[in-house]
Amino acid sequence: MNNHEFYMDLALQNAQAMKGQTDPNPLVGAVIVNHNRIVGVGAHLKAGEPHAEIHALRMAGDKARGGTIYVTLEPCSHHGRTGPCAVALVEAGIKKVVIATLDPNPIVAGNGVKILKDAGIEVVIGVREEESRKMNEVFNKFIVQKKPFVTLKAGITLDGKIATHTSDSKWITSEEARLDVHHLRNEHMAILVGVNTVIKDNPELTARIPNGRNPIRVILDSTLKIPLESKVVTDNLAETWIFTSKNYDEDKKKTLESLGIKVFHTNGMKQVDPNDVVKILGEHLISSLLIEGGGAVNASFLENQLIDKVVLYFAPKLVGGQHAPTFLEGAGVEMMRDAVELADGSFEKIGRDFKFVGYPIYHK
Amino acid sequence: MNNHEFYMDLALQNAQAMKGQTDPNPLVGAVIVNHNRIVGVGAHLKAGEPHAEIHALRMAGDKARGGTIYVTLEPCSHHGRTGPCAVALVEAGIKKVVIATLDPNPIVAGNGVKILKDAGIEVVIGVREEESRKMNEVFNKFIVQKKPFVTLKAGITLDGKIATHTSDSKWITSEEARLDVHHLRNEHMAILVGVNTVIKDNPELTARIPNGRNPIRVILDSTLKIPLESKVVTDNLAETWIFTSKNYDEDKKKTLESLGIKVFHTNGMKQVDPNDVVKILGEHLISSLLIEGGGAVNASFLENQLIDKVVLYFAPKLVGGQHAPTFLEGAGVEMMRDAVELADGSFEKIGRDFKFVGYPIYHK
Repeated sequence: MNNHEFYMDLALQNAQAMKGQTDPNPLVGAVIVNHNRIVGVGAHLKAGEPHAEIHALRMAGDKARGGTIYVTLEPCSHHGRTGPCAVALVEAGIKKVVIATLDPNPIVAGNGVKILKDAGIEVVIGVREEESRKMNEVFNKFIVQKKPFVTLKAGITLDGKIATHTSDSKWITSEEARLDVHHLRNEHMAILVGVNTVIKDNPELTARIPNGRNPIRVILDSTLKIPLESKVVTDNLAETWIFTSKNYDEDKKKTLESLGIKVFHTNGMKQVDPNDVVKILGEHLISSLLIEGGGAVNASFLENQLIDKVVLYFAPKLVGGQHAPTFLEGAGVEMMRDAVELADGSFEKIGRDFKFVGYPIYHK
Repeated sequence: MNNHEFYMDLALQNAQAMKGQTDPNPLVGAVIVNHNRIVGVGAHLKAGEPHAEIHALRMAGDKARGGTIYVTLEPCSHHGRTGPCAVALVEAGIKKVVIATLDPNPIVAGNGVKILKDAGIEVVIGVREEESRKMNEVFNKFIVQKKPFVTLKAGITLDGKIATHTSDSKWITSEEARLDVHHLRNEHMAILVGVNTVIKDNPELTARIPNGRNPIRVILDSTLKIPLESKVVTDNLAETWIFTSKNYDEDKKKTLESLGIKVFHTNGMKQVDPNDVVKILGEHLISSLLIEGGGAVNASFLENQLIDKVVLYFAPKLVGGQHAPTFLEGAGVEMMRDAVELADGSFEKIGRDFKFVGYPIYHK
């Protein structure tokens, strides 16, 4: 590890620490170094507040002059609340700027670097690029596509089952894995399940960790058959948004709306169209969606190439059962060569379970 | 790591290198140290040939006197081709014996240690015990229970499927994983599949690696419907043993036997009884069995608590499909709390796939 990586790692750590509190802005961290001493550290804390570079410049004061700044994302070129950061760096007399990744935001995308270079500042790009890009995977998609970054999550046995053949499913994974799921929920703006999960399990779908932020609860319910006594309808712990097909019950809709539930319609004739769900969520500035569906819901999103990331908690146990449901059902692909491959797959031990993370690659 | 572990690791490495060539004897390695120098190294190479200690003593010659021997398994106390090793160690003037594990073989089990201690030799037991025990997991079961150590192997997608809903299954895992399977086959005395796998895939079930030893092919075929043109019937690459229920075709049996196939009968009325299969294989001195069945065969062995070890190759891909088969079907357990848990689970990357190894724990 060279010095560049050492300082960029510190910037990344500061950025990462703000996970969940900067939406809809990306995570950004900055470190200013002068004569081999760290003179300033900063991170973007909250949308509407100063960017990471500004915090770091303020901490450094005069010592920024002649220094090097490490910043996890290209300094901005547009006029926000604190002016373009690239200009602020020039004015502070920074001599060198080391950047992890360029900003995918089309209104920045290289313009920040241009301002710096035009002012004669040395710019290095790509230190810890992969780490920085993954840290802001949600922002990177949303800023370009205006659709949420979609993560499919399931807790399963080693044989892929989410319940026994009698539908018993409590519990598959360990407490540690379930706690990890609550952190996942905390990091997402919305969580999605099918109405059958609501009927069967009557879940709260909240982030049960200290100071957890509850995601908006998105329920797919083609006909509006959701029971009015469901927790997601009555508990007021978070907003609940229901998505229907064209084939919904108009009276039930009015009742639900009178209870504070938002009802959205998709163009699916019988089933909810998952493409519309993602589009509508994007229009409502939902940048991240966690899917905790059953096998049919999960498959409908995968078949429509809407899943960006897959997180699986494997419990080291076997249940068997030809009729026990797996986390991915639907029709499925016909030929093995058409399977959806996952890139960057990795396993990590969580309690007694194993957490898999991977990214689907779609070819068409 | 202290000196004990350093030398024992070398003994373990030498033992492990002989994997597959010592059957039905266990893997054993030995290292003799005198005045901080290694003076002898040995391993058991082949049943009927000298034990590891004898090879090490021969290499050490006079330098064994006053030395310490590290041996992965308790020195034997019974008269084999080279006499009891414990006595040989006493006669060679060894001063100290460090042992990884006691011998589970009831005719040794502590008697070797007793001979050493009675002769005034210092004995240390338990250095790298876990490693040594796992290395000989097959021997340890067979020598006590007279039944094969049974490993269930499957190559699956992340959603637990072994084929698409159209039964397409080529290929799920990468070449690297499939090569690993050939090594697994090479290490097993017998390999088992159901007749439906033979009908569908017409496999050779051989160890396709340089100098691979082909396992005996065990086919479960309740009625003897196996096609006579199947490779396992015609290719003579290895022995083929077929196990039937009581409901088999007597004429077909004679035909198969005339082709050199062994036919065994189990007490199952309609289906092959897996308990009988394991018992009969044990009576024929088969100490290790690799099951590569479909979901029904795999489940029948698991439900009868006959699986000792589970090896799964997860390909990082998803196929989905409510009707796509998983590697474990049958009836399955009713309640999630009755799932079969696996101990000592671990994942290892093989090519682009992930290999899981774990050991089922049975409670009744």
